[in-house]
Amino acid sequence: MQKKTVLVLKIGGSVLDDPSTLKTCLAQFALLPQAKLLVHGGGSIATNIGKQMGIKPQYHNGRRLTDAPTLDLITMVYAGLLNKQVVAKLQGLGSNAIGFTGADGNMLVAKKRPATPIDFGFVGDVSDEAVNITLLRSLLESGYTPVMAPVTHDGHGQLLNTNADSIAQAFAVGLQQFYDVTLIYGFEKKGVLLNKDDEESFIPKLNMVQYNKMIAEGSITDGMIPKLTNAFAAASKGIGRVIIGNALALGDILNGSSGTTIDSNA
Amino acid sequence: MQKKTVLVLKIGGSVLDDPSTLKTCLAQFALLPQAKLLVHGGGSIATNIGKQMGIKPQYHNGRRLTDAPTLDLITMVYAGLLNKQVVAKLQGLGSNAIGFTGADGNMLVAKKRPATPIDFGFVGDVSDEAVNITLLRSLLESGYTPVMAPVTHDGHGQLLNTNADSIAQAFAVGLQQFYDVTLIYGFEKKGVLLNKDDEESFIPKLNMVQYNKMIAEGSITDGMIPKLTNAFAAASKGIGRVIIGNALALGDILNGSSGTTIDSNA
Repeated sequence: MQKKTVLVLKIGGSVLDDPSTLKTCLAQFALLPQAKLLVHGGGSIATNIGKQMGIKPQYHNGRRLTDAPTLDLITMVYAGLLNKQVVAKLQGLGSNAIGFTGADGNMLVAKKRPATPIDFGFVGDVSDEAVNITLLRSLLESGYTPVMAPVTHDGHGQLLNTNADSIAQAFAVGLQQFYDVTLIYGFEKKGVLLNKDDEESFIPKLNMVQYNKMIAEGSITDGMIPKLTNAFAAASKGIGRVIIGNALALGDILNGSSGTTIDSNA
Repeated sequence: MQKKTVLVLKIGGSVLDDPSTLKTCLAQFALLPQAKLLVHGGGSIATNIGKQMGIKPQYHNGRRLTDAPTLDLITMVYAGLLNKQVVAKLQGLGSNAIGFTGADGNMLVAKKRPATPIDFGFVGDVSDEAVNITLLRSLLESGYTPVMAPVTHDGHGQLLNTNADSIAQAFAVGLQQFYDVTLIYGFEKKGVLLNKDDEESFIPKLNMVQYNKMIAEGSITDGMIPKLTNAFAAASKGIGRVIIGNALALGDILNGSSGTTIDSNA
């Protein structure tokens, strides 16, 4: 029997920070007829509100630490403001969205990252097995569109800040047993670009050999590397399709005319 | 056929503001074996965080107005911080809690209050028919404990600040078609007191005649009046039991040894 399709879309700061970009993305997403779920990250709004509240970002080697006030801030802004605004907007667009953190319905349990060698604070790492697939499937089958904030829990009362890319990956892996899964990491560019200043230079398909070559040549740098590392990790777990592409071109990505498909076979 | 029982517990600021009070209340709530759901209000934390963010409370005749920054604040603090902390704590206590606003799964649609004679801003009023009973029942039947924040939506993309007492009432009325409903308005006292300084002077049962007499005599004042008005309105809609009592004595309330049962028959 052919499996039903499901789309897992992850969007991050570049889409969330600008209201008109977010609106366009959600309007496209709401129109897609297949079962679907959205995982959103944070955005600069948490930093701005943190500033107003006197919460100073703490870093270790450029990576942000989640102390107790920062966890509260993230829970307020990501699980509260952003998640509920996205849910209400999708509802207004006719999509029966329902917002979650990992704590809600025990949707996703995480393990607090060990405090050594570096104590990142209240940060949780997820495994693909930690998804409440029963709940997720039941919602998808009932026509709901889950909208997941990058906050999980440890199952013992503690909320944890969790990377949205990893959450999207865990959901996609969990669902592939039952669905033909397409995982889209949506951002502001058409895909992986050969020339970062030319949108039309996007590569339709990228395998690991090409990827490593591009890193060696310096044509993939900075923010793209963790994005792609995550995408390759997801693709290697047998997810139907993993695509990096423009969150404002969802239709084109799904019909294959935009975005970079990650090929884990080579 | 005898209907299953369901408990709707509403807790407000007096329970939410003190972490140890909240912890005790949630521990008692988590232990209750019947189907149950929790509706929480706000608390002083939103005012405190608002101060840090420079959001000044706006009032009209002592009633707070919800302008756009206040709505964002409420969404952050009530639907984000408070709701997710309560959900994570209940999960840690073995109760499979799942957090909601009215926008999530279209759980509760509200109408923005008309701007005349007074524009209260982004405040929504709910009707008993606006509850997504299908979703609520499906969650209760699957063993989940819904935890509702005092935020709803208009169905067209707009979040709205909504009174938690009214939400609890709408849920209780919606559920009574399928369940034997007990609605508890939990607060810091044993119930309606004949002498406000003597906890043991609580009245086990209160009807409308007695209530009006007590108001005329001045023995019920201030904050108790809107609470009781709401409780009588709920009781008049045929809810099995409506009780006002101590949120830290849930077992005693349920076995009838504490709390004031509202009797709408006289």
